[in-house]
Amino acid sequence: MSDTLSARPLPSVVLFSLVPVAAWFVVRPLVDPVPPLPALHASVGFSIFALLTTVYLVPALGPTFVKANLKGRDLLKTYTTPIPESMGLVCASVYILLLILFIPFAFASVSLNGSQAQYTVREGIVINAFPHYQLSVYLSSLLSLLIATMLGFLDDIFDIRWRHKIPIPIIASIPLLMVYYADNGNTHIVVPIPFRPLFGSLLNLGPLYYLYMALLSTFSTNSINILAGINGSEASQAVVIALSVALNDLLYLPWPTGFRVPLHLLGSRAEVEVGGVWSAGMAYGSTELVERHLFSLYFMLPLVGVCLGFLYHNWYPSLAFPGDTLCYVTGMAFAVVGIQAHFSKTLLLFFLPQIFNFVLSCPQLFGLVPCPRHRVPRFDSDTHLLYPSKAQFLKRPQRLSTVVLQALAGLGFTELTTLPDGTILEATNLTLLNVLLLRLGPMREKRLTQALIAVQVTGSVVAFVVRYGLAYLVYDGDRR
Amino acid sequence: MSDTLSARPLPSVVLFSLVPVAAWFVVRPLVDPVPPLPALHASVGFSIFALLTTVYLVPALGPTFVKANLKGRDLLKTYTTPIPESMGLVCASVYILLLILFIPFAFASVSLNGSQAQYTVREGIVINAFPHYQLSVYLSSLLSLLIATMLGFLDDIFDIRWRHKIPIPIIASIPLLMVYYADNGNTHIVVPIPFRPLFGSLLNLGPLYYLYMALLSTFSTNSINILAGINGSEASQAVVIALSVALNDLLYLPWPTGFRVPLHLLGSRAEVEVGGVWSAGMAYGSTELVERHLFSLYFMLPLVGVCLGFLYHNWYPSLAFPGDTLCYVTGMAFAVVGIQAHFSKTLLLFFLPQIFNFVLSCPQLFGLVPCPRHRVPRFDSDTHLLYPSKAQFLKRPQRLSTVVLQALAGLGFTELTTLPDGTILEATNLTLLNVLLLRLGPMREKRLTQALIAVQVTGSVVAFVVRYGLAYLVYDGDRR
Repeated sequence: MSDTLSARPLPSVVLFSLVPVAAWFVVRPLVDPVPPLPALHASVGFSIFALLTTVYLVPALGPTFVKANLKGRDLLKTYTTPIPESMGLVCASVYILLLILFIPFAFASVSLNGSQAQYTVREGIVINAFPHYQLSVYLSSLLSLLIATMLGFLDDIFDIRWRHKIPIPIIASIPLLMVYYADNGNTHIVVPIPFRPLFGSLLNLGPLYYLYMALLSTFSTNSINILAGINGSEASQAVVIALSVALNDLLYLPWPTGFRVPLHLLGSRAEVEVGGVWSAGMAYGSTELVERHLFSLYFMLPLVGVCLGFLYHNWYPSLAFPGDTLCYVTGMAFAVVGIQAHFSKTLLLFFLPQIFNFVLSCPQLFGLVPCPRHRVPRFDSDTHLLYPSKAQFLKRPQRLSTVVLQALAGLGFTELTTLPDGTILEATNLTLLNVLLLRLGPMREKRLTQALIAVQVTGSVVAFVVRYGLAYLVYDGDRR
Repeated sequence: MSDTLSARPLPSVVLFSLVPVAAWFVVRPLVDPVPPLPALHASVGFSIFALLTTVYLVPALGPTFVKANLKGRDLLKTYTTPIPESMGLVCASVYILLLILFIPFAFASVSLNGSQAQYTVREGIVINAFPHYQLSVYLSSLLSLLIATMLGFLDDIFDIRWRHKIPIPIIASIPLLMVYYADNGNTHIVVPIPFRPLFGSLLNLGPLYYLYMALLSTFSTNSINILAGINGSEASQAVVIALSVALNDLLYLPWPTGFRVPLHLLGSRAEVEVGGVWSAGMAYGSTELVERHLFSLYFMLPLVGVCLGFLYHNWYPSLAFPGDTLCYVTGMAFAVVGIQAHFSKTLLLFFLPQIFNFVLSCPQLFGLVPCPRHRVPRFDSDTHLLYPSKAQFLKRPQRLSTVVLQALAGLGFTELTTLPDGTILEATNLTLLNVLLLRLGPMREKRLTQALIAVQVTGSVVAFVVRYGLAYLVYDGDRR
């Protein structure tokens, strides 16, 4: 039950034994025989290095951050020790630097494969390790990530008001949009079956498509940022989402063995067959799909690395805070893969808890219900338990506010304190974390983070079922 | 003789009248008939917008910077008003954002020129507005600029010691190097005539070429950073160098009229003929040379814009300080064009004052002579004049130090205070600014900045004479 702060031990033996493993993965593409997906090996190696670097750099740089006044106290603790803040900057820097160093592995296929830039996969498709024209797409993604990092850090330093910072991710997505435009990017979407009588099967969204991409990055960034406030919440959300995206990507790679996703057990009519000897997984032989999902993996694997490394120090009791920087860079990374690898709808499915939290927050975000500066759960220093925090009405609530809150209370998403005449005095803050505390009862902070992770994992399981079990209801064909 | 601080007036009428001019330049490429170099028109328009945006943003954001503790006092003034520091960040952000927005103009040639991506210049060469493969080169340059900005800002915040920060620009140049490598970049150099018996006429430097590129960015960044400390010095250096590079680029563009550089008047044997009806200037019909110098112009013109806009507020008495951020981003911009447009030797010629200042500083940088924290000239608050500042020997100088200092004193680059037995007690700090004060006598700060600008302009004139009048002594042919 101790609540004191001590530097987390770094198990050097375990960690250093990972160095040769990572090095082997990085060097593997240079060794004959070249593996089927050489750059993916290097990416795995880089991701392990990402984890190691973050694990060591975060505690090493903590004091420097505190000295530069980048610090905060943990509101849900009894102690007031200053904790280094904005340390997501370290994660973002390691992440982006490794992605830059990865460029020759992904694109200089000539030097990797001797004289030939492509190789034939047995019984399957021909894959360029990475088509050269995609280098500009990769670089524009890096630019967007770097701008997101920069803006996140500036947000931490200048403490921008939340209403002003919502559109910030749009700025970060400009490089993506510009290169998409310069590349004469496709702005057609496949229309869901129910709407086809109205729009036909393909619809050209034109400029609206660019708006959609900009809004996607705004959503993915801000939705992680508002589901935050307890130790480990931001980093663990990012880890679960990144792993889900990576798992989805793996389904499309050419695997040496075949396997079947047993969706028929879930009552789905869709049969999902994956693999087959060296066939291209769910890509069904499409080189382009394989390349897209490789692209996505190159961004997701090192993200998992840095977030796990950071989580080691950010876990309860937290020794480093992520700041807005981490939310911005992870959110942007998800938007980048969703846009560039063309699976934004699937991506949004992995954001179910964030979507729930955002929709639930709307009455507070849009002024129907008072919104205090912090909506994190309330910490009771006697019991060390977290309780739902409350928003107080300073004046009599509007009619609409009362209706909305009573509906939400009916659904069990908030608890109201009312006068005998029904006038609402207080409502628990409208966040997923408070809903968890309402439904499951008061709990310790660490337990709440674990509950949040469980919710996120459940959300991803639901996402996979919807994507591969139900999507046939609104989209036909092999849904590329 | 007043030394007080008042916000600089923004002549709105003049400035707003520039908006339609800039807008016309930006829109011009979309209007028939398409001009010969459409993207260059847009670049000029963007550069005017860069100037306007910086002129308005710098004073508007000043208070925010001061509030976030990004402030400093002016050491060469009597007042102690806090001045916003690190405002080079504003310049860098405007610069990079405009360069990103410029992407469709430079690369989406199809949409600009209707159905055909290239057009024929009369009597001359065929030019792609920008070859598509260069998009990745452009993007990697933006990445390097953004990393330089980021690191410059971190340097301002964390106040990194100078010995540690010298290699920082190498990190920023990694994207350049990676893309150069992935592109199978050429690492051959043309050997100067005197060395050809040893190396032949072409030499493959291999990895050394990458080292050279990394060191070039380190030099261009740090050399501006150490020739600083008085109001307007950093920004004015950047403006003169950028204008020199742009002027050099203009020599290679296809101009509608011919002209001759009258180098024979200077006694040169080289005849430099430029232009001719629609011929490609000094590019002598080489499409590649035209494209390279267009690339350089796209980066230099907006840089002139933001630096001029900033200089308006940074001019004596300064209302905004550039911080390391400005030096990093401008230095990196010069390295980028020198490397990507392949005229690094010519670029270095425009750095003559910086090279002189660096070489002169070496005894202090490498510990032969004590190096105080600030080497800026000393301000006398009674006369408001600047005097050479001095470094004091706390212990008896080594033999080598004495020899070096006596040599420098003999050349008039330093002034020594000695005991009757010749032991050196003090020496004026070894910087170009102190040399100017030694040679020209004490002067006011504004006058010293003007002297520095005069030196920089003289340096550029010398550079042009050397490049086009003397280079034939060591290189033959048309020196591409």
